[in-house]
Amino acid sequence: MPVLRLIRERFAAERPLEDLRVAACLHVTAETACLARTLVAGGAEVGLCSANPLSTQDDVAAALAEDASIDVHAQHGEDLDSYMSHVTALVDSGPQITLDDGADLLTAIHAGGQDGSPGGDGATAGAGVSLIGGTEETTTGLLRLRRLDAEGGLRCPVLAVNEALAERTLNDRYGTGQSALDGILRAANLLLAGHTLVLLGYGFAGRGIAQRARGAGAAVIVCEVDPLRALEARMEGYEVMPSLDAAERGDLFVTVTGSRSVLRGEHFERMKDNAVLANAGHFDVEIDLLDLRALATGGVQPVLPLVDRYDLGDRRLNLLASGRVVNLAAGEGHPAAVMDVSFALQALAAEHLATHRDDLPPGVLDVPRAIDDEVARLKLAALDVQIDALTPDQLDYLEGWRPDAR
Amino acid sequence: MPVLRLIRERFAAERPLEDLRVAACLHVTAETACLARTLVAGGAEVGLCSANPLSTQDDVAAALAEDASIDVHAQHGEDLDSYMSHVTALVDSGPQITLDDGADLLTAIHAGGQDGSPGGDGATAGAGVSLIGGTEETTTGLLRLRRLDAEGGLRCPVLAVNEALAERTLNDRYGTGQSALDGILRAANLLLAGHTLVLLGYGFAGRGIAQRARGAGAAVIVCEVDPLRALEARMEGYEVMPSLDAAERGDLFVTVTGSRSVLRGEHFERMKDNAVLANAGHFDVEIDLLDLRALATGGVQPVLPLVDRYDLGDRRLNLLASGRVVNLAAGEGHPAAVMDVSFALQALAAEHLATHRDDLPPGVLDVPRAIDDEVARLKLAALDVQIDALTPDQLDYLEGWRPDAR
Amino acid sequence: MPVLRLIRERFAAERPLEDLRVAACLHVTAETACLARTLVAGGAEVGLCSANPLSTQDDVAAALAEDASIDVHAQHGEDLDSYMSHVTALVDSGPQITLDDGADLLTAIHAGGQDGSPGGDGATAGAGVSLIGGTEETTTGLLRLRRLDAEGGLRCPVLAVNEALAERTLNDRYGTGQSALDGILRAANLLLAGHTLVLLGYGFAGRGIAQRARGAGAAVIVCEVDPLRALEARMEGYEVMPSLDAAERGDLFVTVTGSRSVLRGEHFERMKDNAVLANAGHFDVEIDLLDLRALATGGVQPVLPLVDRYDLGDRRLNLLASGRVVNLAAGEGHPAAVMDVSFALQALAAEHLATHRDDLPPGVLDVPRAIDDEVARLKLAALDVQIDALTPDQLDYLEGWRPDAR
Amino acid sequence: MPVLRLIRERFAAERPLEDLRVAACLHVTAETACLARTLVAGGAEVGLCSANPLSTQDDVAAALAEDASIDVHAQHGEDLDSYMSHVTALVDSGPQITLDDGADLLTAIHAGGQDGSPGGDGATAGAGVSLIGGTEETTTGLLRLRRLDAEGGLRCPVLAVNEALAERTLNDRYGTGQSALDGILRAANLLLAGHTLVLLGYGFAGRGIAQRARGAGAAVIVCEVDPLRALEARMEGYEVMPSLDAAERGDLFVTVTGSRSVLRGEHFERMKDNAVLANAGHFDVEIDLLDLRALATGGVQPVLPLVDRYDLGDRRLNLLASGRVVNLAAGEGHPAAVMDVSFALQALAAEHLATHRDDLPPGVLDVPRAIDDEVARLKLAALDVQIDALTPDQLDYLEGWRPDAR
Repeated sequence: MPVLRLIRERFAAERPLEDLRVAACLHVTAETACLARTLVAGGAEVGLCSANPLSTQDDVAAALAEDASIDVHAQHGEDLDSYMSHVTALVDSGPQITLDDGADLLTAIHAGGQDGSPGGDGATAGAGVSLIGGTEETTTGLLRLRRLDAEGGLRCPVLAVNEALAERTLNDRYGTGQSALDGILRAANLLLAGHTLVLLGYGFAGRGIAQRARGAGAAVIVCEVDPLRALEARMEGYEVMPSLDAAERGDLFVTVTGSRSVLRGEHFERMKDNAVLANAGHFDVEIDLLDLRALATGGVQPVLPLVDRYDLGDRRLNLLASGRVVNLAAGEGHPAAVMDVSFALQALAAEHLATHRDDLPPGVLDVPRAIDDEVARLKLAALDVQIDALTPDQLDYLEGWRPDAR
Repeated sequence: MPVLRLIRERFAAERPLEDLRVAACLHVTAETACLARTLVAGGAEVGLCSANPLSTQDDVAAALAEDASIDVHAQHGEDLDSYMSHVTALVDSGPQITLDDGADLLTAIHAGGQDGSPGGDGATAGAGVSLIGGTEETTTGLLRLRRLDAEGGLRCPVLAVNEALAERTLNDRYGTGQSALDGILRAANLLLAGHTLVLLGYGFAGRGIAQRARGAGAAVIVCEVDPLRALEARMEGYEVMPSLDAAERGDLFVTVTGSRSVLRGEHFERMKDNAVLANAGHFDVEIDLLDLRALATGGVQPVLPLVDRYDLGDRRLNLLASGRVVNLAAGEGHPAAVMDVSFALQALAAEHLATHRDDLPPGVLDVPRAIDDEVARLKLAALDVQIDALTPDQLDYLEGWRPDAR
Repeated sequence: MPVLRLIRERFAAERPLEDLRVAACLHVTAETACLARTLVAGGAEVGLCSANPLSTQDDVAAALAEDASIDVHAQHGEDLDSYMSHVTALVDSGPQITLDDGADLLTAIHAGGQDGSPGGDGATAGAGVSLIGGTEETTTGLLRLRRLDAEGGLRCPVLAVNEALAERTLNDRYGTGQSALDGILRAANLLLAGHTLVLLGYGFAGRGIAQRARGAGAAVIVCEVDPLRALEARMEGYEVMPSLDAAERGDLFVTVTGSRSVLRGEHFERMKDNAVLANAGHFDVEIDLLDLRALATGGVQPVLPLVDRYDLGDRRLNLLASGRVVNLAAGEGHPAAVMDVSFALQALAAEHLATHRDDLPPGVLDVPRAIDDEVARLKLAALDVQIDALTPDQLDYLEGWRPDAR
Repeated sequence: MPVLRLIRERFAAERPLEDLRVAACLHVTAETACLARTLVAGGAEVGLCSANPLSTQDDVAAALAEDASIDVHAQHGEDLDSYMSHVTALVDSGPQITLDDGADLLTAIHAGGQDGSPGGDGATAGAGVSLIGGTEETTTGLLRLRRLDAEGGLRCPVLAVNEALAERTLNDRYGTGQSALDGILRAANLLLAGHTLVLLGYGFAGRGIAQRARGAGAAVIVCEVDPLRALEARMEGYEVMPSLDAAERGDLFVTVTGSRSVLRGEHFERMKDNAVLANAGHFDVEIDLLDLRALATGGVQPVLPLVDRYDLGDRRLNLLASGRVVNLAAGEGHPAAVMDVSFALQALAAEHLATHRDDLPPGVLDVPRAIDDEVARLKLAALDVQIDALTPDQLDYLEGWRPDAR
């Protein structure tokens, strides 16, 4: 995590989070430990609970617990009650900044007394300093917070880390692009060369998947509902067509749309015998499993640990990882280099909340472009890449001619 | 121009510009003629003068002049006085909508009496209907208009056509990407394979150039001042480095930054003997010609119609097209398929001004995303590409879960 | 294995191996079972032993043993004595055609009495029909057989299956290209995008690796000793340089040369901290482990199941899979689609030996181009791809003008 | 021509052609002048006539004529009689080595007295030294010489320069690949991105065209009659299909097969309105012009200097450069970097003939692989690329294990 290390070094010198209480509800992993230590280096007291009991690494939790500035509430496999008590404990500690992965922490703070926590006071608790703000790194969490905001209930600023330009541009395209195909190869040991991959969804992650699949020799067909994205795919040389037409052509189908039932009965009925189905979207709703099971009159049979064969009578379809997000379910998720960028955004977002505590309005806010730039700058340094700066003469010129450029 | 043809058919049926006077100051070419006829089909009276005397095609002007609804003021090679009188004639006609390529028309209208035209009245002239608004399709023109606006002088809305997403995404990347390399090959008949292309500027056009050069077998080095763009280039697999380091490596240098003196003395002094220099940016300031001439102690010699050899004593550098934008100066500029998209944006922008004449505030405005989508949809139709629509079930789902998506 | 299935169907109809005894010393896997059944369908009696005790799948062996025409001598984890007795048993059965993976079978037959087997008679044993010939699918096996031939000892034709054009073109480039990177990602969960991959060896497999790595966003540097291959790499746009220079640049190093000590002490001493080393060549000699251990004054530590970290004091290097061939050691080897082509070549080579038993001279022979073409044709059919045939008019034309084309 | 320059420097030192008479019948251009001077540097007396009266550059001829060691017989636009007299003059001079571009020189020498030249003596003429051999760089010339050989008439060795590996690998793929698309863009100013290019013929040149077209954003469909090539195209991710199916899909068709009537009536009848047809093969027989004209019931109309529009009633097809080889007819042919490799092969082939004059049998011979390697080595040097050499340890290893590798 070289980007986070560079931030940590600066934080240690500048102490931007001095004496602030930061509560984080994240996956408790080695990468998260780096983030926690970075925050501590910046001067924060950190409370940590786990956003998912199954991803908690107990050895990491134990190691972090040895740090006097870090208060860990997490156990691998804990039950829901235990989980809720951990969230409550963090809420009770009166955090001033929250880092969320699903918004459980910040919504609990806002929910107030209903779950027995001081809640309502939470927003103003903590050594006399009120809640400054939070960060959120999932689409689902942002949805919850935006609804809360629409109802007038959100009382602090929240930075939408997973919508930051650096996150979208780098992690979705390069991280998910690689790890989705990696998961598919691990699950099914397919040869991509010579085969046709039908990609449903040409967003950032879709672009990454398409590019890598082509690089591996696959013929790529793109299906999209957004005309501008569809056109962009076509201008990149991919075939673009309606999904029902593509259903007849594909050897491998990959969904990554964020939508539901993108592949459904009418698609399954047109597919070739032995086609392979994988989902790289966040939720397992993109491949319609009800339709698939209903058509599988010949039953379902596991043929490899992560491959189920659905027998539709005249054809068999192979579903990877039960339709769950294939890069996590069949691979190892993002490489550390990707998490490094995400957590760097988190750390800088926390700093931004702290240093602009008096300027930021309540609501879900974009991560400032300057933070994207800073992360990019640090990532380049981590890759040992130098770049130019504008000369004074060029600054003059651009000032004169393009006062509003970009 | 199939996209424009589809718009023309709809305009003929819907007449969105009925009885409006539209004045256009554009390059008078066959493509512009299609645009003019599209506007007429929409019900407009069109006045046309030439944004550049050298690009005027007299036969096109003559053919257009036969249309009673089109008033042409343009002659190939006309002098400045003649040009100004043509602009003035259009201003005097009291246009309600203007289409500009450099903002001469709209600034003349705003300038009012100072040049003898009715000017000040222009904005309110024309059968009692005041000026509705304008479109502008160059960076330079937008700069002038934004300055006017900053000084409080802009009295109508202007749609920034050249900043539309469809324009940036499609034309800059694919159009300029192809035509810049095409111009270079025409001028210098280089073999790209095996050689190193140093690309200065990784904006939309730069991306297109990099991708095509790599596809042709060049090793591509990218120089950037923007860290996020630099990182993106690196994540695409290009080498990224400061331009002074790249200066020693390149066989071919291409500037496309929008800035000044991107290649200058200190670069020339490090270049390899026989390196080739080309500019794909709009203005001829990206390669510092003063520095280059100052270093050329051995003189300058034309070696091909569009290639000048600068003799620096210990090395010779080859400048293409005198440093002017190489896709226009050494090639034929954008293919018709590219102009089709640009002019479709112009036509729809004019319609938008007409139909929202009461809603739009004065100032330089973004082209609405709906117009980008519409152009993309028509372009896909022109390419005979069909795409999916969301199902009602998917709309429900996305409504519920992602009210704010995108 | 659709290609093999098409061959099996034809064999069942044509019976080209009627009453021939075929002995195969191969990996006893599900794919080999398909090959054995194809040979049986062609009329052969098949004897099978395992080329590698560790790759034997006992359930496959058991299932094959139920077929009266297949005689299996293989057990997972068998010791050397057991292995030799199995080879001897096959030799004693008097095979007329042999399929080898390392040449143990055919060399044993030629070795004759020295190991107690009937050997010397083997070549002429078997219901009065002498040994017809063999196939070999490893470089090592071919080496042994060519040496035998050079000494005048080879008494039958051997078809060099692993040098067939279809094998080289398809399996090395596309199969190894994909599976080597797949193995690396499984072992180390690296992000390729943004990093520099140094590829040592630009043969068929190297080309495939380079192309896929670039497609995944890596910057690729190629090192070669063959000038034509080096030039080809350069013309594809890769950077090409001596390995000592590349040593300073790489984040990931992949050897696939067939040579020894391609990465050695002088390279390790120049590498960046945290560089990753992987070998995709057949033998584990390409990365010099002795040198690496000698330099690792700080010790060696496993950091992941297939990653050892060598501490060189001022830098740490990460070795994947102990330097063994990474696509097998860290991945699952070739996808079935690749084995399908290899085994189709084996089956057609066996048929060729049978049908040309009177024409073929002793020695190591090229697989006839017609077999490559036939495999390509069947593979296209398996991929559901149709192609053109020459028209009679075109045949005339090509006959007249290019009698010797190709 | 840096490769040729390196050869020239060595030739000047080693004088491998000392006192030999070399006759060359080539295009008289600046590049050929470099070749002639290289031969002179090697010690030869050079006679030069033009292989094509239209390509003769009179200023080049004049400049060469000033060199006492070069005897030029060429004039731009000379008629057939004049041309034959020039060939005869060279034959009469008693050349010992010939360089041919169409075999006119060598066949004239072999034809003997029939055209009044000493002919029959030619082979033995020249200061008592008989004809040593020749080189030929066209397919057509090789055909003529192979026929001559088949009839038993060829009395000397001829090196088939245009079949050399370096020529095929580099010039066909990278040179023709680039220049064919370049010619198409110059003729028709098409946008490749978003359009479908149907490529007929996936040989070396075809591969280069496909790769570049994809790099420029085209969707590429490949048609082939050779199953292995077709399969390779498919494994690279291209769509592969019969040409009649592809006829309905293409926006742009490019033939490069070496065969006849590859696009013919049945294809034209299925094409889309406004499709573009170009030929990149040597002869103008690949697109069947008779069929095209027969179908053009609405006439033929030039729409651009190199574009003819054929009106088929319900559709219009655009033929580029009258179906002649588009990179020469609409572009400038190969860049100098490509000619450099071709002429380097010529020079080294001439040296090989001289130094092995006693070893080479009569007949059409392959250029030795060592010459390919040498050209590749020099080309790498010209590109300033260094590569590794095998270490003594590696030579040992490869000697031991792979005596016959490659």
